[in-house]
Amino acid sequence: METIQTDVAKKAAGEKAVEFVKPGMIVGLGTGTTAYYAIVKLGEMIKEGLDIKAIPTSAGTLQLMHQYGIPQTTFAEVEKIAVTIDGADEVDLDFHMIKGGGGALMREKIVAQASEKVVIAVGENKLVRHLGKFPLPVEVVQFGYEQTQRLLAKLGGPAIIRGAAHAPYITENENYIIDLQLNHINNPIELENQLKSIAGVATTGLFINLANVVVVGREDGSTTILHNMVS
Amino acid sequence: METIQTDVAKKAAGEKAVEFVKPGMIVGLGTGTTAYYAIVKLGEMIKEGLDIKAIPTSAGTLQLMHQYGIPQTTFAEVEKIAVTIDGADEVDLDFHMIKGGGGALMREKIVAQASEKVVIAVGENKLVRHLGKFPLPVEVVQFGYEQTQRLLAKLGGPAIIRGAAHAPYITENENYIIDLQLNHINNPIELENQLKSIAGVATTGLFINLANVVVVGREDGSTTILHNMVS
Repeated sequence: METIQTDVAKKAAGEKAVEFVKPGMIVGLGTGTTAYYAIVKLGEMIKEGLDIKAIPTSAGTLQLMHQYGIPQTTFAEVEKIAVTIDGADEVDLDFHMIKGGGGALMREKIVAQASEKVVIAVGENKLVRHLGKFPLPVEVVQFGYEQTQRLLAKLGGPAIIRGAAHAPYITENENYIIDLQLNHINNPIELENQLKSIAGVATTGLFINLANVVVVGREDGSTTILHNMVS
Repeated sequence: METIQTDVAKKAAGEKAVEFVKPGMIVGLGTGTTAYYAIVKLGEMIKEGLDIKAIPTSAGTLQLMHQYGIPQTTFAEVEKIAVTIDGADEVDLDFHMIKGGGGALMREKIVAQASEKVVIAVGENKLVRHLGKFPLPVEVVQFGYEQTQRLLAKLGGPAIIRGAAHAPYITENENYIIDLQLNHINNPIELENQLKSIAGVATTGLFINLANVVVVGREDGSTTILHNMVS
């Protein structure tokens, strides 16, 4: 039952989020279950005449775009994304987020930074007071990853290489992901700076000041839209 | 004549730098002409009985290590490097550096961070008051590189993708390099933070507070050793 209930909340959030998409827009499309529901909904709207182009954040999302008839564009053709719809693994009260459970953190961050508006669709269970219960994904280059792992482990929790022991998960940028189990991140901005000071870190799943709108879906199918007035 | 004179200075610096290598040490070995002279010299010392192991910063350096009989180790086996010998493209009075002209910036930074002592060997023409005349290499992921290039170009100078137009140079981490022609970097620390805030940037050629010793070679074959008392 748990899985089905969670899906209702995600589906509600994902479908609600697409209301921010208007005709003619360049749209960024995230990766993961909630983004999937948004993509399916966008596909329906395109069949009904909506004219948009989208930049995907992963090969998986690109495949879904093909499947649901969403035209693709790239950063070679466009400079600005009007609105990006994506999910998150955790969102705090400042709209800081942990992302990257699905492994697409690098592309999701690049797309979010290039977007005028970032709409994050989540089930209500993703809203947290403090980030960190969800393991923080850190994307690291393969060279010297053992050393990078040792440095990350000094930050206060287990630092686990994602994947099997002799077959680590490899990102679309040919990097590894180290998941940091910190439980309670006191200061996300400070942590982000610490992480970035480590040479082997290519990017992190901490998304600071990147979300403009959070669409929260509930298990009864209702939604609430939160606007970040600061960013 | 210019090339020959430069080589004398680099050779003097590279050969002098190896005096910091002591028996039993784990040594980091940089990439480039000056590091080459250090590697050749280390090979001679190993033939005479010196017992060290080294971590290379590039496939090219690993090849030279094989050629000159220097045993290899990796971060899987060791946690700390006692001394790293590397070159630089520019060194300022605070020992901040621009590196990465040879493309190995990521690995060189990882190795430098893991080192108890970093010895930088340069010809005297590499010493500058202000960094920036040498184009600053910035390693960027391939996805969205056009967007990253646009963001970098806003920092004050041309941002050129290294390599041929339709065949960009690709690093050992499968990334591109964008060379930033800034001419005069006022505040390297601030610039480093700005660069790292761009999601598509994997690493930069700005090496802040990483050099402990600078060995300066001159065209007459003499050398001067500068110690950084702060770091």
